[in-house]
Amino acid sequence: MTDQLRPDGTLRHLITLEGLSRDWMERLLERSQSFVRPLGARPPVSHALAGRTVANLFTEPSTRTRVSFELAAKRLGAHVVNLEVQLSSRIKGESMLDTVYTLQALHVDAMVIRDAEAGVPAAVAANVAPHVSVLSAGEAHLSHPTQGLLDALTVRQHRKRLDSLSIAIVGDIRHSRVARSDYHVFRALGCPDLRIVAPPALMPAAEEFAGCSRHTSLKTGLKDVDVVMMLRIQKERMGQADLPDADRYFAKYGLTPERLAGARPDAIVMHPQPMNRGIEISSDVADGPQSVIRDQVRNGVAVRMAVLEEVLVAGTGAG
Amino acid sequence: MTDQLRPDGTLRHLITLEGLSRDWMERLLERSQSFVRPLGARPPVSHALAGRTVANLFTEPSTRTRVSFELAAKRLGAHVVNLEVQLSSRIKGESMLDTVYTLQALHVDAMVIRDAEAGVPAAVAANVAPHVSVLSAGEAHLSHPTQGLLDALTVRQHRKRLDSLSIAIVGDIRHSRVARSDYHVFRALGCPDLRIVAPPALMPAAEEFAGCSRHTSLKTGLKDVDVVMMLRIQKERMGQADLPDADRYFAKYGLTPERLAGARPDAIVMHPQPMNRGIEISSDVADGPQSVIRDQVRNGVAVRMAVLEEVLVAGTGAG
Amino acid sequence: MTDQLRPDGTLRHLITLEGLSRDWMERLLERSQSFVRPLGARPPVSHALAGRTVANLFTEPSTRTRVSFELAAKRLGAHVVNLEVQLSSRIKGESMLDTVYTLQALHVDAMVIRDAEAGVPAAVAANVAPHVSVLSAGEAHLSHPTQGLLDALTVRQHRKRLDSLSIAIVGDIRHSRVARSDYHVFRALGCPDLRIVAPPALMPAAEEFAGCSRHTSLKTGLKDVDVVMMLRIQKERMGQADLPDADRYFAKYGLTPERLAGARPDAIVMHPQPMNRGIEISSDVADGPQSVIRDQVRNGVAVRMAVLEEVLVAGTGAG
Repeated sequence: MTDQLRPDGTLRHLITLEGLSRDWMERLLERSQSFVRPLGARPPVSHALAGRTVANLFTEPSTRTRVSFELAAKRLGAHVVNLEVQLSSRIKGESMLDTVYTLQALHVDAMVIRDAEAGVPAAVAANVAPHVSVLSAGEAHLSHPTQGLLDALTVRQHRKRLDSLSIAIVGDIRHSRVARSDYHVFRALGCPDLRIVAPPALMPAAEEFAGCSRHTSLKTGLKDVDVVMMLRIQKERMGQADLPDADRYFAKYGLTPERLAGARPDAIVMHPQPMNRGIEISSDVADGPQSVIRDQVRNGVAVRMAVLEEVLVAGTGAG
Repeated sequence: MTDQLRPDGTLRHLITLEGLSRDWMERLLERSQSFVRPLGARPPVSHALAGRTVANLFTEPSTRTRVSFELAAKRLGAHVVNLEVQLSSRIKGESMLDTVYTLQALHVDAMVIRDAEAGVPAAVAANVAPHVSVLSAGEAHLSHPTQGLLDALTVRQHRKRLDSLSIAIVGDIRHSRVARSDYHVFRALGCPDLRIVAPPALMPAAEEFAGCSRHTSLKTGLKDVDVVMMLRIQKERMGQADLPDADRYFAKYGLTPERLAGARPDAIVMHPQPMNRGIEISSDVADGPQSVIRDQVRNGVAVRMAVLEEVLVAGTGAG
Repeated sequence: MTDQLRPDGTLRHLITLEGLSRDWMERLLERSQSFVRPLGARPPVSHALAGRTVANLFTEPSTRTRVSFELAAKRLGAHVVNLEVQLSSRIKGESMLDTVYTLQALHVDAMVIRDAEAGVPAAVAANVAPHVSVLSAGEAHLSHPTQGLLDALTVRQHRKRLDSLSIAIVGDIRHSRVARSDYHVFRALGCPDLRIVAPPALMPAAEEFAGCSRHTSLKTGLKDVDVVMMLRIQKERMGQADLPDADRYFAKYGLTPERLAGARPDAIVMHPQPMNRGIEISSDVADGPQSVIRDQVRNGVAVRMAVLEEVLVAGTGAG
């Protein structure tokens, strides 16, 4: 995916964080930070994307990620259209591409795509005209790049630099696009101690997550970490994990104040949401003083504004 | 619900009309009136809410109330996002609050909520940050405050003062949030003769609607009234009302020109819509010269503009 | 439908192209052309419809036509609301009209309606207030006027004048609203050789498409034509056409490079989309050098901008 960047080094598509440089990431996070406002303050609005059009192509429209992209685009002055489509079911017969060509002919400048099938955003990106950008909003179990960036932004707000931190990602790593995007961004930003913590059946394949230590014990996985990134567990996965019900999963992998006490005293707790409270995380922790979960949401709009601005403005020489 | 108002007396949340003062209501109706334009004239537009964000949280998105709130917000310059969510099914496990915190972290300033379960708007209001407002767009059988206000505005446009009027509310009072909100606003504005007219089984509990006379006969209920407010009857309620089918319901409680003749000659006829024509109201009456049903719709946008303006602008000291 | 025009000759409603004059069509196409931009250029945006409201009433919201109308309205500065409604199921009991009156009372200026039942747009148009416009976005098998106009615009971009062209419309003519609207516009613009090509069972009734030659052979139908307009075939129609499956339909009526070779060497190929590739058209042709299918989509927004502008601005004396 080297072709996510334009010749001038600015972003054209955002499909995966894999392969993007530390420099690019730091610049993007800095720009994102400029869009962050505290809760209760007015969010920044501008006309940077006036006359531009962003299409949200989601298989299910009522998600927080769709709303986050929609508000990011609107606050930059773009027109937004929402479509409920499942592109993957159309890959055969080329009708996925007909949908894409249609949107392009309608002068859509950026397509934000969430799809459960691997390869859809890249297939679209390979076929759009040079001025059109594709942004993944979640691709199968593989990639959720704006989530990775907002997670990195959240860590930086609380810890400045990642290159001396210990970070544990906990839960269903095997099926998680969030874990994979976090892995790419945390590694690129120099995190020296990145741990994945999961039941054996939810560990990723051996060749993935190179350089991470692997822990099936939550206790050893969390020991002295600076950041605990909890993942959502799908209920149907618990059987595969030999932890057949929510109670047993929680008993072994749920984050409680007691377990969290094994991390550094100032460790922060993150979760991409939606949370299964009482399954992977207790409400005490989710709403406790170490939780930065709501910061993640706020940072999500900021990151998406920075990404939309870069793909739609920077590339035209106007940025 | 005394905490609907801010210390300076301006509205922060609008969840029920119960307990709001006559002064506040009259000021709100006056401001609403300033947003009213005749059919065919351009509606007022402004930038009063520029940079603000309104989220519509409806369990079913294609309702006239959702569109009315959406247009009110857009004409004041706000950004609007629509979400189809059922918050009540999420009350357990606290995930309702996670949805609310997420929207708040996305810098949503006002949440417009319709939910079939009692207590949802108040539960949200009790948990949002100080700068966020909650507006009920219909709560169970309990409250539909903007409907009450638009009904009062409609009456005032035709009769100036409510404190010498006779008003009859007719139909399924027991299950009607419209009836309850109308009751609160009509009483607060001094209506001296407020009647509820219903089959016995659709009468509210004895402790509700204090001060209203109760009529099971449409004829006595309508006698010499100035305003007839018809309610929608759900078909499944007719069995409970011992009026097992539409024809029998219409024969006994349907508003026809003959029945309407028992009211004052200049009485106005109202209905919150959608109407069951031929069941609770005949088309002759619904489309007749005494009907002000379409005025109610027009007044709905005006009231919602006034409410949005007050909760989002007045409270900041900018109003 | 003579009442589509106002006394001053400008458009008020657009329900069918039947009966509209060549002059009007040419003026509209000229204005549409002024909104056309090449792929990759910024589309024109203005405030021509600032303060105006367009409601999209579609039975199914995720269609390219809905998005095309939505973007046309937004790029002219209008407020847009989308409603998913099936008006036809409501014709009885007059509740279709209650929905319409409600939208009108909300100061909606234009209603864009797609409905599977014949007569719905005209019934709405017959009942709205004088300042409200109704635009059909597809009515049963009868009419799809903006599609006809965008098809004519596409032909003109490639061939300047229609009055010396041979045009073949191929496929399920009988059930096609596109074919009927194309017929009206192509005839009005003077096309001297308009052919319909279909299996016998998909031919329209004898009294329709007056002046067109009829061909059951694709070969004779395409001979030396300048324009090939392919239609979408519904899979369930193929049985009626005595061509029981897709392979047999394609063998007899599918457009391949070999069949296209029988047309003029510079013939253009059109399709209203969505395409059934491999059934009515081969991908070689759909994506080939003679295809102008993507131009049609781009022209669709331009035509809808011109139509919205004319119904909403011209009629007020401001245009």
